[in-house]
Amino acid sequence: MQIRDLLFGRPLPTSDERAEHIGPAAGIPVFGLDALSSAAYGPEAALTLLIPLGISGVHFIGPITAAILILLIILYFSYSQTIEAYPHGGGSFTVAGENLGDHAGLLAAAALMIDYVLTAAVGISAGVGALISAAPKLQPHTLAICLVILVLLTVVNMRGVHDTGVVFLVPTYLFLGTLLVVIAIGLFHTVTSHGHPAPVVAPPKLPPAVAAVSLWLLLRVFSSGCTAMTGVEAVSNGVMAFRDPTTKNARRSLTVIIAFLVVLLAGIAALCRFYNVGATDPEGSGYQSVLSQLTSAVMGRGWFYDITIGSILLVLALSANTAFADFPRLTRAIALKGYLPHVFTLRGRRLLYSWGIYVLVALTGGLLILFGGVTDRLIPLYAIGAFMAFTLSQAGMVVHWRKQKGHGSGFRVFVNGLGAVATGLTTVVVLTTKFVEGAWVTALLIPCLILLMVAVHRHYRRVSQETTCPEPLQITNINPPIVIIPMDRWSRISAKALRFAMSISNDLQIVHVDSPDTDHGAEELALQWTDKILTPMRKAGLPDPKFIRLQSPYRTILMPVLDYILAEERSRPDRHIAVLVPELVVRHWWEALLHNQRSSLLKLLLLVRGSQRIVVINIPWYQE
Amino acid sequence: MQIRDLLFGRPLPTSDERAEHIGPAAGIPVFGLDALSSAAYGPEAALTLLIPLGISGVHFIGPITAAILILLIILYFSYSQTIEAYPHGGGSFTVAGENLGDHAGLLAAAALMIDYVLTAAVGISAGVGALISAAPKLQPHTLAICLVILVLLTVVNMRGVHDTGVVFLVPTYLFLGTLLVVIAIGLFHTVTSHGHPAPVVAPPKLPPAVAAVSLWLLLRVFSSGCTAMTGVEAVSNGVMAFRDPTTKNARRSLTVIIAFLVVLLAGIAALCRFYNVGATDPEGSGYQSVLSQLTSAVMGRGWFYDITIGSILLVLALSANTAFADFPRLTRAIALKGYLPHVFTLRGRRLLYSWGIYVLVALTGGLLILFGGVTDRLIPLYAIGAFMAFTLSQAGMVVHWRKQKGHGSGFRVFVNGLGAVATGLTTVVVLTTKFVEGAWVTALLIPCLILLMVAVHRHYRRVSQETTCPEPLQITNINPPIVIIPMDRWSRISAKALRFAMSISNDLQIVHVDSPDTDHGAEELALQWTDKILTPMRKAGLPDPKFIRLQSPYRTILMPVLDYILAEERSRPDRHIAVLVPELVVRHWWEALLHNQRSSLLKLLLLVRGSQRIVVINIPWYQE
Repeated sequence: MQIRDLLFGRPLPTSDERAEHIGPAAGIPVFGLDALSSAAYGPEAALTLLIPLGISGVHFIGPITAAILILLIILYFSYSQTIEAYPHGGGSFTVAGENLGDHAGLLAAAALMIDYVLTAAVGISAGVGALISAAPKLQPHTLAICLVILVLLTVVNMRGVHDTGVVFLVPTYLFLGTLLVVIAIGLFHTVTSHGHPAPVVAPPKLPPAVAAVSLWLLLRVFSSGCTAMTGVEAVSNGVMAFRDPTTKNARRSLTVIIAFLVVLLAGIAALCRFYNVGATDPEGSGYQSVLSQLTSAVMGRGWFYDITIGSILLVLALSANTAFADFPRLTRAIALKGYLPHVFTLRGRRLLYSWGIYVLVALTGGLLILFGGVTDRLIPLYAIGAFMAFTLSQAGMVVHWRKQKGHGSGFRVFVNGLGAVATGLTTVVVLTTKFVEGAWVTALLIPCLILLMVAVHRHYRRVSQETTCPEPLQITNINPPIVIIPMDRWSRISAKALRFAMSISNDLQIVHVDSPDTDHGAEELALQWTDKILTPMRKAGLPDPKFIRLQSPYRTILMPVLDYILAEERSRPDRHIAVLVPELVVRHWWEALLHNQRSSLLKLLLLVRGSQRIVVINIPWYQE
Repeated sequence: MQIRDLLFGRPLPTSDERAEHIGPAAGIPVFGLDALSSAAYGPEAALTLLIPLGISGVHFIGPITAAILILLIILYFSYSQTIEAYPHGGGSFTVAGENLGDHAGLLAAAALMIDYVLTAAVGISAGVGALISAAPKLQPHTLAICLVILVLLTVVNMRGVHDTGVVFLVPTYLFLGTLLVVIAIGLFHTVTSHGHPAPVVAPPKLPPAVAAVSLWLLLRVFSSGCTAMTGVEAVSNGVMAFRDPTTKNARRSLTVIIAFLVVLLAGIAALCRFYNVGATDPEGSGYQSVLSQLTSAVMGRGWFYDITIGSILLVLALSANTAFADFPRLTRAIALKGYLPHVFTLRGRRLLYSWGIYVLVALTGGLLILFGGVTDRLIPLYAIGAFMAFTLSQAGMVVHWRKQKGHGSGFRVFVNGLGAVATGLTTVVVLTTKFVEGAWVTALLIPCLILLMVAVHRHYRRVSQETTCPEPLQITNINPPIVIIPMDRWSRISAKALRFAMSISNDLQIVHVDSPDTDHGAEELALQWTDKILTPMRKAGLPDPKFIRLQSPYRTILMPVLDYILAEERSRPDRHIAVLVPELVVRHWWEALLHNQRSSLLKLLLLVRGSQRIVVINIPWYQE
């Protein structure tokens, strides 16, 4: 218990709920890491595709980043509105489900669940990938390092949302601070040098162009760059985690996250343009990441470079945390509607939806093991889910505002409609450009997940229909049960069972299975029956209990008893049959090996093969 | 079920018991394989130790074999008497226990159990070893082949004693027939050539002497040769497996087994002497077993040689069967006295003591895996147990006959006394000569096993003392129990539970744990309580049940309920507390994942933490 408390913190009472809530400053590390860390790989992914265009490729990064930023700002406004409209958490599942119908909600839910698992896996593997390009001799341990980080993230997150915010605050602000300094100084040099800054460390020369530009290439560049946008919906999903005033704090967090992301993306694009920095071949020997090139061009290779690169590695790995913060809230929302097991709605010892975390960790670990912890293999599966969910959420918001018809709803419909069209188009682009490489896996998993959720829902609905009881308690026709007592010999254990049986009914049946291996003879049994049971009961004026001796040609004890009970149940359709199972409880677990497990087996068999009118009464007898 | 029947045979009713019994002919493969197969490795083991003496070593095999045969014949007479005196099976455990006291019996039991496991492991690994010296490329698969043979032996033995005898009849008689032919023809040539027969294939020349003879060496040779005697007590242990007249049939089997063994050992020793056959270095490149040398010297290397060697391999591997036949009978005898779990006394579907077989297979498999299936590593642990048991059994018989004081008991005391002294001396020799090589492991295991058996016995005795009930049923002071019903909401499931509760008691307590995660509000609950339960009960003139709402600051549902039940039990020392656990039983196992397992957990917690006065009533509710 001590170690558990040390690792995960003491259990929190429900009354501490408010103290667990976070402010806008902690909201950034908790919900924003996925979005912010994309600054480290979004531009990189786009520039990598532009390598074949040589020096002219860098010129395209400006317009493409502009397009991405416009989409990002549209998303910002529409999610900001979503937060206002759904102060109890407006994930895509909720918004799409409430406005477009259950099926759209399930589609969004499945897409988002898959995407969150991928966020966790991609974030961890990208961080480890960056670490390995800095220290290549760690390469053989890739998967092990990934799993260690997964465990660390799990432990921190199991401590609760509040502690997570505190732990991740420093790396997040270090990452933001250093990158902003690089961008500021770089732009300052650009301005003072009239657009031709001199790099401190010159970036590698860009290779000559080997291909001409095409629309298909630009679309692929755009869709790669769009991976920078995943994680934007995280805040709207987690509004309830913020302290009062919740919506205001959540919107503040979202604003800060998007503002930082816009500045980072724009600044990186501008510096790439002015310092002539392009991506290098990730498979080549001279590979260097874009941010590493930029930082050394602007600041040189001193301690500042080391801190910047270090904080980038850390934030990439921690970006998985967004999944930890949001996946359990998503599964809880789905479970509340009855499409996932109810266990996802229960809060564990640290006021978290613990089962969501367990499932996320299991799936992420499985994915990391399956793909060996290599980011490149995971990336093609990624982002489709997020954009699908974005689209459904925006479309849902359009319907939502049209229903409201209040002041300013026209503008809101326009903003969300624009978002829906933009993200919808992006979904199509992303799915088309990545389909063969792996997006088909996601496209296949989504309907499977939906089918699963529908099956769960159908089960719950059926159980609910069967068990819901509109009428009050019926008091007529209440008879004591027929009590069946299996007995191997006369002992204190059977005496206790018999006394309890007499206290609840007068209709007793004692069942004995003749066994050549354990019985001490029929005479002894008959003697015990008369002397110990029948005579005292007759003296007390009680009705005779039935004594039933069963034969067992194949020596099993349980089967004849079970068959007798089932036959008795069939022949007495008006009565309850209470089977009394006496059980010796030993003092140490190993002592249980010395006794037959017939009591446990009988209980199990009766549960599995029993019927509505068979009740099991377990009378434990504790060894002194 | 079909496959199981095909593999292990259909279940046998107890009435078929007599048909499972075997005659003396089948008794030889079932109980005699261990003893007979030792002809293949006993002389070999002795001759290997004689290698350093060169040609003169072969001259010692005569006197040493004579000593071994004398000991064997003494054992034969004394075990023959044991069978007569203990017609229900007179293993060393029974004979030593009844005549020398429980501790001597336990010593014999522990020694024999260890030796039987070693018999199984050594038999299989020796057979596989012989196979591998014939086909060396199988070497890397040694352990796998050992385990496959173990599984095959298990399957055959699980079919019952009768089928085992039938299956093993052919290899046994093939082994005896071919070896007897070799001995007969060899001796014929010896006689016709006046003691100097010409070998068909000349055996390898014996190496020059490198050491002088010493008493210590001869003692070691003797103790190695004595391994040929293990398995002699098997028949006396298994008398009950023979058909009527049991003792007569058992003695016949024993006589035939010992007669064959004497002829084989004497014949092999004689042929070695006259054909100048010694052992070859088992580590050397030109290794050839003694029986292979003898057979090729007498018969040449034709088809007869192949059949002979093949049947030797087979019988070596099958010699493990003696352990399968006797170990379960031994553990049954021990369990009947309460020194091992009672489960060893129960007969399974084929009228076998199945659990003895399971444990033997598990231990043998473990031993084979631990020692990699290599015979040489196992041999030093072997035979000590058997000789210890022999000695105790003989000593026990001496006491037995002295108690009888009947006709001829003086002679019987002499025979068994001679046996006791001879086997006692042999035990000391075996233990001393093999102690460092591994016999210490056995010497250490025996007391551990005895301690275990004593602990088991103590447990059974305590339980028996606590549960034995000399007085008849007490009918005074029988009150209906207080019934506690945990209830989360009003449903058909809780309605059914409540109706059953009303049928057995008027003293009802309904317990609800307030849960912010699942409750639909306190008002709804209060409404349900009044409308659905209280009002109808009052109308029927029944006493009000108690309604208890429990708070749970840490959101667990079970702990507050459990604490309440335990507190209620303490405050009402005169009453039984019946806890009513309603349980939804789903139609498919996977559907259970969709529901909380609180019912199962509460049942488990109440069993573990409950007390004599707490009874659990499980009311299953079956989904339609």
